[in-house]
Amino acid sequence: MFRSITCLAGGVGAARFLEGLAKVLPPEKITVIVNTGDDLQYLGCHVSPDLDIVTYTLAGIVDKAKGWGIEGDTFGCMDQLGKYSAETWFRIGDKDFATHLLRTAYLQQGFNLSEVTEKIRNSLGVKVRILPMTDHMVATKIKTPKGILEFQEYFVKRKFQDRVEDVTYEGAARATPAPGVIPAIEKTDLIILCPSNPILSIGPILAIPDIRNSIAKTQAKIVGISPIVGGKAIKGPLDQMMESLGLEVSPYGVAQLYKGLMRGYVIDDMDRGIIPRITSLGMRVIATKTVMDSDEAKSKLAENTLKFAETIS
Amino acid sequence: MFRSITCLAGGVGAARFLEGLAKVLPPEKITVIVNTGDDLQYLGCHVSPDLDIVTYTLAGIVDKAKGWGIEGDTFGCMDQLGKYSAETWFRIGDKDFATHLLRTAYLQQGFNLSEVTEKIRNSLGVKVRILPMTDHMVATKIKTPKGILEFQEYFVKRKFQDRVEDVTYEGAARATPAPGVIPAIEKTDLIILCPSNPILSIGPILAIPDIRNSIAKTQAKIVGISPIVGGKAIKGPLDQMMESLGLEVSPYGVAQLYKGLMRGYVIDDMDRGIIPRITSLGMRVIATKTVMDSDEAKSKLAENTLKFAETIS
Repeated sequence: MFRSITCLAGGVGAARFLEGLAKVLPPEKITVIVNTGDDLQYLGCHVSPDLDIVTYTLAGIVDKAKGWGIEGDTFGCMDQLGKYSAETWFRIGDKDFATHLLRTAYLQQGFNLSEVTEKIRNSLGVKVRILPMTDHMVATKIKTPKGILEFQEYFVKRKFQDRVEDVTYEGAARATPAPGVIPAIEKTDLIILCPSNPILSIGPILAIPDIRNSIAKTQAKIVGISPIVGGKAIKGPLDQMMESLGLEVSPYGVAQLYKGLMRGYVIDDMDRGIIPRITSLGMRVIATKTVMDSDEAKSKLAENTLKFAETIS
Repeated sequence: MFRSITCLAGGVGAARFLEGLAKVLPPEKITVIVNTGDDLQYLGCHVSPDLDIVTYTLAGIVDKAKGWGIEGDTFGCMDQLGKYSAETWFRIGDKDFATHLLRTAYLQQGFNLSEVTEKIRNSLGVKVRILPMTDHMVATKIKTPKGILEFQEYFVKRKFQDRVEDVTYEGAARATPAPGVIPAIEKTDLIILCPSNPILSIGPILAIPDIRNSIAKTQAKIVGISPIVGGKAIKGPLDQMMESLGLEVSPYGVAQLYKGLMRGYVIDDMDRGIIPRITSLGMRVIATKTVMDSDEAKSKLAENTLKFAETIS
């Protein structure tokens, strides 16, 4: 049994996994460090997509079909913005806007992002501790043949159609971890790299030097769950992106990115065949069902991950 | 026939009158100078209640029952803000939020309020020219036994329950009129003081020195429509406020405030009896139906006002 667990997380896949984890463990034992490299300013509002996806999911109010936004939300504000000919490719629901308005107002009052995140998750009754990776500005930028794109421009506006030549995390080298991040890494038994995009979601977190260093030095076990099943990303642009960057589109390709860091890896049954290759990278591997297509599947994956983590050194 | 008409306006009463006026005249001939003393910041958004009431009404999208906000609007954002324990006494609909978000974003980009107002009314297809009284900050403050209150705190939060000891227009003495305001006063044939609160709506406009001076000097005819019928304000706190301030709660009390400025006054049939007293203030008066309880009544009042204005010197 682990005393505490710290997870590194992006958006939808991570949130679903965390939902399962919070059902098989007391949620107070869990800390999540969330990517903020996708954050954007929209009409003066500070939008933190991954923080919101994780928070809404753990609060039980996420739009389950989409994986983001608030269930049953309306789009009156966006519709009206369309009438004003404002840019509306980044769709924000009316209830969702409340989060961004409140966050922005708090930030303007001088609170930092981690304090605001704490207020919001407490208001929504979320017991899992949610930390942004940093209170500083880090922006994931995508180099494409069209030029360097803001992450959301690449992802939402252009629907990840562009070939990715490089990914950079602007500001990461100078960013310091948000309060609580380093203790959550140093004082935990187990670190889980959630089933998130290793380049777009976990990458920005590990690009912050103090986080990377403390993870490299921690005594905690480090396990990951593959976001790739049978050569395809469950959601989002990971497969195209890995291919563009010359990486193998498989759990092996992801494991290579975490080589030297991750000690155990949970992959899907479907990819059982490549276990020996991944093992050769110096990590333990189990294959199980990783597709979280039901609440039961989420809890089961969390349980299997914990059991597996117990067995590794 | 008037070449052009310039109206001074507050919120609901003025907007309804303007709706009628824009039906009996080509709307391009009409300029409205709107009170911004009620403007407020809510969660970082710049809200201009009177500008929005006038714009939405003339665009045909106002919530007719309430007189403000957008018809059929939802309140998802406000409901969610309530869950975050944010202050929600100032109710903003989801579509309405779009206006405030856009306005705020434009202001942050360096546009001034009059430019933003122009963009919004053009997007909504409004042909009447709408000008904020000033691009500067003017704040109507209400002195009460509870202390000095922000206007919306007095009006919306505390539902104008407090005795009014004084009303001041913070910033008015230093404010300059928005571009277009002075020409609209100097080059028009007719100025109409809309049926708005003389203290809270028309008062802030006239408190801007350059506006007051140009109205005092203009060759245009100046007529007003009483916002008081039978000793009561049609809407809002005018009657209680006039009483608190020791003014007579009647069209006569309002006319006293405009003495020396207004040359003709349109009052309700019900107040016909006080015509001689108002005439003694040095203005012409007609009595007609001023309660705008139908589209027909709005147009009729506009028509009667114009006919009356033709007859005065």
